[in-house]
Amino acid sequence: MRFVHETLPQRVAFAAGDAPAAVAAEIEALGASKVMLIASDREAALADPIAKEIPVVLRHEEVVMHVPVEVAERAREAAASAGADVIVTVGGGSTTGLGKAVALTAGLPIIAVPTTYAGSEATNVWGLTEGETKTTGVNAKVLPASIVYDASLLTSLPGDMTVASGLNAMAHCVDSMWGPRADPIDRALAQEGIRGLADGLAQVAEDSTGIPGIEQTLYGAYLAAVSFASAGSGMHHKICHVLGGMFNLPHAQTHAVVLPYVLAFNAPNAPEAERRISQAFGAETATAGLAALRSTLDAPKALKDYGMPEDGIAKAVAPILAAIPANNPTPVTDDNITALLRAAWEGDEPA
Amino acid sequence: MRFVHETLPQRVAFAAGDAPAAVAAEIEALGASKVMLIASDREAALADPIAKEIPVVLRHEEVVMHVPVEVAERAREAAASAGADVIVTVGGGSTTGLGKAVALTAGLPIIAVPTTYAGSEATNVWGLTEGETKTTGVNAKVLPASIVYDASLLTSLPGDMTVASGLNAMAHCVDSMWGPRADPIDRALAQEGIRGLADGLAQVAEDSTGIPGIEQTLYGAYLAAVSFASAGSGMHHKICHVLGGMFNLPHAQTHAVVLPYVLAFNAPNAPEAERRISQAFGAETATAGLAALRSTLDAPKALKDYGMPEDGIAKAVAPILAAIPANNPTPVTDDNITALLRAAWEGDEPA
Repeated sequence: MRFVHETLPQRVAFAAGDAPAAVAAEIEALGASKVMLIASDREAALADPIAKEIPVVLRHEEVVMHVPVEVAERAREAAASAGADVIVTVGGGSTTGLGKAVALTAGLPIIAVPTTYAGSEATNVWGLTEGETKTTGVNAKVLPASIVYDASLLTSLPGDMTVASGLNAMAHCVDSMWGPRADPIDRALAQEGIRGLADGLAQVAEDSTGIPGIEQTLYGAYLAAVSFASAGSGMHHKICHVLGGMFNLPHAQTHAVVLPYVLAFNAPNAPEAERRISQAFGAETATAGLAALRSTLDAPKALKDYGMPEDGIAKAVAPILAAIPANNPTPVTDDNITALLRAAWEGDEPA
Repeated sequence: MRFVHETLPQRVAFAAGDAPAAVAAEIEALGASKVMLIASDREAALADPIAKEIPVVLRHEEVVMHVPVEVAERAREAAASAGADVIVTVGGGSTTGLGKAVALTAGLPIIAVPTTYAGSEATNVWGLTEGETKTTGVNAKVLPASIVYDASLLTSLPGDMTVASGLNAMAHCVDSMWGPRADPIDRALAQEGIRGLADGLAQVAEDSTGIPGIEQTLYGAYLAAVSFASAGSGMHHKICHVLGGMFNLPHAQTHAVVLPYVLAFNAPNAPEAERRISQAFGAETATAGLAALRSTLDAPKALKDYGMPEDGIAKAVAPILAAIPANNPTPVTDDNITALLRAAWEGDEPA
């Protein structure tokens, strides 16, 4: 037991149906009075009731995926012109990401109101895109001061988006068990995140508008982000990053397909992860728990279904071997990564 | 699921055998260069190797239990005269407490190096005593910036102190399940704390100098303090506070005796606590798990053994009823509190 763990300061409120009052309370706690409200036009209807209860000096709608630099610049200028002293974001990862881009240069606090299970609201990581190049960084200034989770804002999220986004959060938890900086605190938070996600996603699969299921899923996604930000990217995220970049695969589906193969690959050599994950699922084994949840959710099964070419398997092996952290529980080889990719491409039973 | 949880910023390092280098690294990370080192004469031998590796401008030895105001004043003046820019404490709760008293007025960061399982290092609570009156408060300035846990500093802690201090930490975890501000995050951290304490204390009972057992116990005690500071005092701590004040009972032993009775009282009406505690112990039920650990440790059993008079039972009921939080899982009455106190006084089987 030898590690350094850094706990980041953040307030998190769970307030189903009460985002307007909860956001107003957080603004008051910060002593702020000039709100820059960031919400895309798709999220306008969700943001309107909040806008009514808080002192908005600027409403900003230009939200673009991956936060292009020029979009960030326009948002920063607008914030400065309006004299905003706090940023409120209502939306998914792209919306939170734009808020972070403004906070990074302006030093304003963020109150994040998530409308997906992306988890960006619980990390100190920012990202900006210039042309084809994405730059990411870590800065205390971009960690939202407060998060307000209001489950009623997610009742209209489509079922397939919920499954993809929820399994993405599950991947954060599983990879937090063996990420390069993973420590027991990360693993304990990730275990609790898996419990919340397994419980919540099973409920949401039955009824996509049920508040208790959405709340549990949000709770799990929050802990997933907290643990993953601390533990760092492990084998799963390294594989998905390589595949996504090489073959332009859809992000969430790629994660959903690859996860069970990575879990089956590492669990036999990661007894603490095996114990924690199986306990979180309430299952005999970690892989059985994940398989049971995936079957409930009718989760994506094979990379070939999402545009990865068969000859891509051989091409991806070398960059994947280079990217996987040295502390990975099961040592990686050309052979075992080829076998893993082949199985994930075909959609075979994870072994 | 409706709560506001505040996560406090803190770095925590586990570095068995390496406190000197780990403390030096934390001082460098803070950019500090003038250390006020607080350690009582009893802890001098533990503090010396650390003192050699860091820029000490003042070594302060006057540490007194409960932090009398005049002791705090002398420490504050000494810190100001020496121009200290960081406080390093090496010791138990009283030593950490004195560091907090200085930080409260001087605004200096603290690096805490605990030598017991008290947990004060992980909270933003300070305490000062003037005559018979103890004042406590909550202030962000007194939360240590960093903690360095070095298990080798606890190898000489006497066995009975370890058991008492460890069970006190266990009481923090159990009471965090139903404290007045308890939320699922507190409960998850407390669950992990119970797991660490149960594992660690069982090892320490076999071998009080074994590093892995001490590390697990420190880890559990840390999470106990984090969860308890957030959840607030529940039924267990309210009872012990009343009894300790009325009959001048020894702190740790009182907690060790009372805990199983409170657990047996609340668990039937607290299904989430029952699930989490039994899982943490790896036992059929929460009460069975605690009982098994207590028998391993030969824990204190009856209040009558520690100086509580039999007629104290009747006297204590009213103030206890007034102090227990309204959200307690099992409603309290004159009758059931009398029965609980009677059983704890006699050392009967908790029912």
